Amino acid sequence: MRTAAIVGAGPIGCSVGLALRRHGVATHVIDADPEAARRAEERGAGVAEAPAQPADIAVIAVPPGQVAPVLAEHQKLGTARVYTEVSAVKVRLYHEAWAHGCDLTSLVGGHPVVGEGGSWPREPREDLFEGRPWALSPTDATDILALNRALELVALCGAVSVLLDPETHDRAAALVSHAPYLIASLAAARLLDGDESAVRLAGQDLRAVTRIADGNPDLWTDTLTANAGPVADQLDGWAAQAGLLARELRDVARSGDPARPERLRAILRSGAAGRARIPGPWDTPLD
Amino acid sequence: MRTAAIVGAGPIGCSVGLALRRHGVATHVIDADPEAARRAEERGAGVAEAPAQPADIAVIAVPPGQVAPVLAEHQKLGTARVYTEVSAVKVRLYHEAWAHGCDLTSLVGGHPVVGEGGSWPREPREDLFEGRPWALSPTDATDILALNRALELVALCGAVSVLLDPETHDRAAALVSHAPYLIASLAAARLLDGDESAVRLAGQDLRAVTRIADGNPDLWTDTLTANAGPVADQLDGWAAQAGLLARELRDVARSGDPARPERLRAILRSGAAGRARIPGPWDTPLD
Repeated sequence: MRTAAIVGAGPIGCSVGLALRRHGVATHVIDADPEAARRAEERGAGVAEAPAQPADIAVIAVPPGQVAPVLAEHQKLGTARVYTEVSAVKVRLYHEAWAHGCDLTSLVGGHPVVGEGGSWPREPREDLFEGRPWALSPTDATDILALNRALELVALCGAVSVLLDPETHDRAAALVSHAPYLIASLAAARLLDGDESAVRLAGQDLRAVTRIADGNPDLWTDTLTANAGPVADQLDGWAAQAGLLARELRDVARSGDPARPERLRAILRSGAAGRARIPGPWDTPLD
Repeated sequence: MRTAAIVGAGPIGCSVGLALRRHGVATHVIDADPEAARRAEERGAGVAEAPAQPADIAVIAVPPGQVAPVLAEHQKLGTARVYTEVSAVKVRLYHEAWAHGCDLTSLVGGHPVVGEGGSWPREPREDLFEGRPWALSPTDATDILALNRALELVALCGAVSVLLDPETHDRAAALVSHAPYLIASLAAARLLDGDESAVRLAGQDLRAVTRIADGNPDLWTDTLTANAGPVADQLDGWAAQAGLLARELRDVARSGDPARPERLRAILRSGAAGRARIPGPWDTPLD
């Protein structure tokens, strides 16, 4: 990879630019706001102008609802030979790209998993992607050369590629990110009902569970709406399990049978087993 | 306070002993296992023998199911003038103490909120309670002198007393601790269904939400059974809200009405508002 175009001078786009520059890639930062592109150039993310020749890859790093029209525009301009993007939902992306008449052979949907505390980082960092998972979701239409270019991009950013078809990606994102965010949000919202002295009892456990509940509501509304089906499936599964657990608890309390809590204990053990499946590192501070 | 008896030489009991010794209180550590009491003495938690005269306060720091019989035994022995304990559920404690014929005038139920990651700490620490909430739940029967002695104990341990009647305490504990633990456990258990590549996408958000899911299943089964009603109420509330949110998501996706996500956005905002009610500090590392 020799050249890359970053479309969108936010923290993610600039972090990609910084990461690629470490490897000698000539990066260009394009933004609808020329002032934002100029600031990105000052930060070292790349020169604030479109490439004269098509770049090896363009990274569309704009808000999720704008990806398809911006992609269509740059494919018309011939900004790059291969295109990727960084939104959190893939099925809707391909629908919208198709509806905008985009060339799907040169498109590789991507999703770097770098959000913390439910939000993107506010400042760009060249090591933002280091060791993080970065999903790539090619379709049957995707050219293998385009996919290999996207794999190279992820490697140069220091991240770990995870190949998932768009439907599998969206179900996985609902499971490991979108539903947990809503769960944290619901847990935090319940505190609005608790009185002052109840909230005084809050310890580290509650802080951990609700930590990600202060994400950007606008960005999340967009993401959740885009992935509504898989997220709703997760929530329904949740609701059913929480209801079952409530009944089990009342039964255990009512029966007074000392053997009865075995099922409750089994549920708690499966939680510990599920947690053990999450790869490390676990060492990020709470705030 | 001049003398204190610690009954139960586990990490909580020993931490109380260490904290009181800093203030010159003469502490005694009593345990059914003399070897455990001897180790506690070596660690500086107090002398490994019962006090010759009734101590100013006895702290019963044994597993929740054993508190009432151990309390009854020590009240008969006259180990102290005032008794407190450290279990996580208060209504059942008073029922059991009453059933064991304990003197309720000298008993102040207590609950230091120091668990992290769903478990008690494994090693005693003299600063374990520093700045932490410590609930005290007197009843109408509790002598005011007993309550003041318990308040002094909490202050000497460096913690912040939170007065809550037993029912309010148990509802609060269900809200801020017991239900969140189950929620984390359910979130983690759902990962058992996810395939390998889905789990690869797990980021810091999922780590935060499921962090506390590896608590001790035996201790938690006991706590949850003891507080079954209030915890089941919380879970039912949860299940209802998760179900509503699932329907809202499907409706938003189906309607395509750009004004429609306002209700979803409002739910997310209430999550952020609820989180803002949790007092700091938020600076404890995830593991």
